[in-house]
Amino acid sequence: MLKPLGDRVIIERVEEEKTASGIIVPDSAKEKPQQGRVVAVGKGRVADNGSVIALDVKEEDKVVFQKYAGTELKHEGKDYLILREDDILAIIG
Amino acid sequence: MLKPLGDRVIIERVEEEKTASGIIVPDSAKEKPQQGRVVAVGKGRVADNGSVIALDVKEEDKVVFQKYAGTELKHEGKDYLILREDDILAIIG
Amino acid sequence: MLKPLGDRVIIERVEEEKTASGIIVPDSAKEKPQQGRVVAVGKGRVADNGSVIALDVKEEDKVVFQKYAGTELKHEGKDYLILREDDILAIIG
Amino acid sequence: MLKPLGDRVIIERVEEEKTASGIIVPDSAKEKPQQGRVVAVGKGRVADNGSVIALDVKEEDKVVFQKYAGTELKHEGKDYLILREDDILAIIG
Amino acid sequence: MLKPLGDRVIIERVEEEKTASGIIVPDSAKEKPQQGRVVAVGKGRVADNGSVIALDVKEEDKVVFQKYAGTELKHEGKDYLILREDDILAIIG
Amino acid sequence: MLKPLGDRVIIERVEEEKTASGIIVPDSAKEKPQQGRVVAVGKGRVADNGSVIALDVKEEDKVVFQKYAGTELKHEGKDYLILREDDILAIIG
Amino acid sequence: MLKPLGDRVIIERVEEEKTASGIIVPDSAKEKPQQGRVVAVGKGRVADNGSVIALDVKEEDKVVFQKYAGTELKHEGKDYLILREDDILAIIG
Repeated sequence: MLKPLGDRVIIERVEEEKTASGIIVPDSAKEKPQQGRVVAVGKGRVADNGSVIALDVKEEDKVVFQKYAGTELKHEGKDYLILREDDILAIIG
Repeated sequence: MLKPLGDRVIIERVEEEKTASGIIVPDSAKEKPQQGRVVAVGKGRVADNGSVIALDVKEEDKVVFQKYAGTELKHEGKDYLILREDDILAIIG
Repeated sequence: MLKPLGDRVIIERVEEEKTASGIIVPDSAKEKPQQGRVVAVGKGRVADNGSVIALDVKEEDKVVFQKYAGTELKHEGKDYLILREDDILAIIG
Repeated sequence: MLKPLGDRVIIERVEEEKTASGIIVPDSAKEKPQQGRVVAVGKGRVADNGSVIALDVKEEDKVVFQKYAGTELKHEGKDYLILREDDILAIIG
Repeated sequence: MLKPLGDRVIIERVEEEKTASGIIVPDSAKEKPQQGRVVAVGKGRVADNGSVIALDVKEEDKVVFQKYAGTELKHEGKDYLILREDDILAIIG
Repeated sequence: MLKPLGDRVIIERVEEEKTASGIIVPDSAKEKPQQGRVVAVGKGRVADNGSVIALDVKEEDKVVFQKYAGTELKHEGKDYLILREDDILAIIG
Repeated sequence: MLKPLGDRVIIERVEEEKTASGIIVPDSAKEKPQQGRVVAVGKGRVADNGSVIALDVKEEDKVVFQKYAGTELKHEGKDYLILREDDILAIIG
């Protein structure tokens, strides 16, 4: 199991589907967001007074994130992306 | 449904109309603002003490925003723009 | 009506008059300030503790501002400039 | 009358005199300070908690300031310089 | 013994194993994270009010960290890496 | 008399002596510190809450400072250097 | 005697020994840390509220520091390095 630190989030990419209900990024966009599923979240950002500001995303959330954000890694045979919560644009409700 | 995170706002672009009451951006402007309708807003910016500072714009507001701000995305067949509230210049009242 | 957000201010440019009482920017200045009339002001800057710091300029103030500051826009047939209060140098009393 | 905003100060340049009591900037200095008389001061810097931190310089002070600081403007036929108080190096007592 | 200062952490690199349970960084990743074992931690980050914010990682934690983070050093014949806790991406639980 | 503003300090350079008790900067150093005598100090840095944090150096202190820091000026026929206290490295006790 | 200001520390370099107990920096490291002995420490960093945050290193500590940090100076015939505490990586216990 991977436990992200601080305000980091681990995401499993979801292939972009071309169905009516999916998110489809237009080909011409310069900075394409991508879609994924949150698999682990850090405890949150530690403020200067020592208090912890919990994250807004939680495990199993479907999210849209900036394309070039974060670092890719492989764990137990699967590909993940680890990024900061601020690189996540929106939750797909 | 797309729920933006933090101080992000989702906007649907509105075509610039050339009527007397519409916003018309002069052609020669280097950095042209654009017009849109707010479709979803985040909960607000989280300050260092953990408190949440709510956004000033709300759903259905008509707004003027910086042209190159934000990230474009398509959801359920429609084009949206997701940007930070600070990239919004003014509300059209 | 345009309602600026936060610490933004909407200004209508005033042509520089060459009378003794007007502000005349020397031709050789690298960074020429310009003169305008405030037509709308935002509610102010939101500090990190959530309090709002009201602006010092108000509607109808005549102001001098940095030449290249802000974004130009046209509304109901008139040209305006929208900029942050910090780009305003002085009020003409 | 020009009323500077925030931590800005309006200065009238004073020609550098080559007398024993004047400030003479050495010709070889890369970044030459200059001398002037304060003609108007802003109310001060607004801190994040909304309090105002008054300026240390006041009208009629003779000051030394950084050469390339600020913006030049002409008002009622006179040339002035408007700069931030932090660009003022010292008061000539 | 080496005692890191502040928010610094000393890590002993662990060779990337190609077993199913290990972390395998894909060859094509631009910015490859790496795996290590924490051997010493600083007392934490000192906040502006003087309080100390303890680190989240502790000795013997297995961690994933950014490839080019930190400074390499040799101590008593062994190679270590000293980096800031913020360069650590996740703990392997 | 020159009264520096804020956290600024006015220094009179002292020639580097090559005696055993003097500070001798090695010729090969890329960034050579220099030696001087403090002739005037500002009231201190004004913190965001309006309180003033007094300086640690005082008049007549002999100090070592960064070579390229500050601005040179001439006053009543003498050469001085005006710099921020943070550019002073150490007091020679 | 040299008394460093604020969060500065004066260090006397210690030659890297190639014994088993010494720190040996690998030749290939891009950014080699170095070893030294602390000879003087400043009173600490002055926080924005005026309180002083004392340093963690003390006189006689053996420390490892970043190679290109700080400024070299000679005092009473000896070579020293003056740097900020944040450039010190670890104390050798």
